Amino acid sequence: MTDLRIGWIGAGIMGLPMASNLLMAGYRVAVYNRTRARIGPLVEIGAAAAESPAEAARQADVVISIVSDSPDVEQVYLGEGGVCDGVRPGTLCIDMSTVSPQTARDVDERLRHLGVAFLDAPVSGGKTGAERGTLAIMVGGAAADLERARPVFEVLGKRIVHCGPVGFGQLTKLCNQIICGLNLLAVGEAVTFARANGLDPKVMLEAVSAGAAGSWAVDNLGPRMVSRDFAPMFMIDLQQKDLRLTLAAAGQRQLPLPGTALVQQLLAANQAHGEGREGTQALVKTLERLAATLPCESRVSFPPSGSD
Amino acid sequence: MTDLRIGWIGAGIMGLPMASNLLMAGYRVAVYNRTRARIGPLVEIGAAAAESPAEAARQADVVISIVSDSPDVEQVYLGEGGVCDGVRPGTLCIDMSTVSPQTARDVDERLRHLGVAFLDAPVSGGKTGAERGTLAIMVGGAAADLERARPVFEVLGKRIVHCGPVGFGQLTKLCNQIICGLNLLAVGEAVTFARANGLDPKVMLEAVSAGAAGSWAVDNLGPRMVSRDFAPMFMIDLQQKDLRLTLAAAGQRQLPLPGTALVQQLLAANQAHGEGREGTQALVKTLERLAATLPCESRVSFPPSGSD
Repeated sequence: MTDLRIGWIGAGIMGLPMASNLLMAGYRVAVYNRTRARIGPLVEIGAAAAESPAEAARQADVVISIVSDSPDVEQVYLGEGGVCDGVRPGTLCIDMSTVSPQTARDVDERLRHLGVAFLDAPVSGGKTGAERGTLAIMVGGAAADLERARPVFEVLGKRIVHCGPVGFGQLTKLCNQIICGLNLLAVGEAVTFARANGLDPKVMLEAVSAGAAGSWAVDNLGPRMVSRDFAPMFMIDLQQKDLRLTLAAAGQRQLPLPGTALVQQLLAANQAHGEGREGTQALVKTLERLAATLPCESRVSFPPSGSD
Repeated sequence: MTDLRIGWIGAGIMGLPMASNLLMAGYRVAVYNRTRARIGPLVEIGAAAAESPAEAARQADVVISIVSDSPDVEQVYLGEGGVCDGVRPGTLCIDMSTVSPQTARDVDERLRHLGVAFLDAPVSGGKTGAERGTLAIMVGGAAADLERARPVFEVLGKRIVHCGPVGFGQLTKLCNQIICGLNLLAVGEAVTFARANGLDPKVMLEAVSAGAAGSWAVDNLGPRMVSRDFAPMFMIDLQQKDLRLTLAAAGQRQLPLPGTALVQQLLAANQAHGEGREGTQALVKTLERLAATLPCESRVSFPPSGSD
């Protein structure tokens, strides 16, 4: 299958290692990125540089995009010099960004008129998963198109789930973010409660991790909250974008999501304090600040937030 | 060590299988329960029946209590015919109920004046963990007293964590309940969002469970929400008692816990609908009812709540 030619759009934190893995697996890849300098490492290992999404798509059998937000995806596919301006009938386009389900449906509709198939296939697993090729891939679209894409997906990820028609990969990813957000809040409140009561949060995390409170967030975000390591596994600004998409999609169904809305508001407080580019575990600082002006006995044991 | 004589107080859903495991391990056990009929199964396998906590404590080397709430523990230890009326100096008393840290400290103080040691040692793992002897045990008190209790704990549980002085077992358990409550809300909102959008929640749970959204709640409560199985793994009424203790303890530190408070309010809505004795996963019904009067496209696919 490695005679497939791939047009790759987006060389950010996720896109760069993913495209790199495809090049290492022997695929021929033409790469476009809005900030051209970022594609250097890919060109060095054999990628062709494209001047526009249209050019990246022109010679491709499969076009893959992974960019930041819904307007970026619309620009990449539907804008001037976009994929739609270069793509040939019979091509398969795959958007792996996390964007609104409606954006996925809009792009699909335009591509369908050109005789081009589309999958939305957002991922979970972060930078590490992208580098190791162990991403979870949530796929919306026709099953036959997923089968065409499978050899490529198998280079990029390890759990590949067909979630339904176009848009359903995005819906599944939004569910993923609902859970991640509330599991994050769970650990943040438990760590803050422990500290405020003089209970060693490390001991607490160890005690609860094996039972009904166990989660990826307890194991991975809890220790970082305790050690005050706020380097991003996943940035608050991106989590906020995903929660905004989630609440908008829920709003269209007139579905209240009180917990998700609360997480979004608390993380907005982090953003207000200039912490949007920190990891989501920095939510614990918002929870501490809620108590900061109150006579909270153990407040003195919180490191000053200026030290981060 | 099985020549230790145990005074056991409380033969409820947890206490009955725990005391049974100690009898099977060869311990001599005198049992008291407020509703006397419930101790029948223990007497049948060799337990002595006690007429009061004082009587259960009189001949014991170790007294263990596991009852419902703070006032019950106070009654059992400090009330008329309570443990304090019968216990001998040198005895070790262990309360495995989930109650307020202050109750643990109060009981400890009274027992100390009698020359009696005390541990608070609430558990996690539910009825199944109690039956299998695989509970997590969160212990507050002196390390030396924990060592005296260890052979008994090893019959009852598999993860035994020393959390700090008296009261710190309870504080750790409350952290456990903070996390359980919010992880529950996480799964409930994701399942409801999926359903409202026509996304198969089973597929969604499978897609998200292996990644950063993974949790015990996703694996155990998610499928029950999907199959509308609301039989209790853990009852809403008991979760509410634990969240009440948590919010009270947080309030004493003037620590806001907005997520935990939200979970408590949403589960209060379940109680208002007569669902207090259902499992915590019935929270999903409250989330659905939030959307019930709105023109929610997939509302028709929710089973009517009368069918439960």
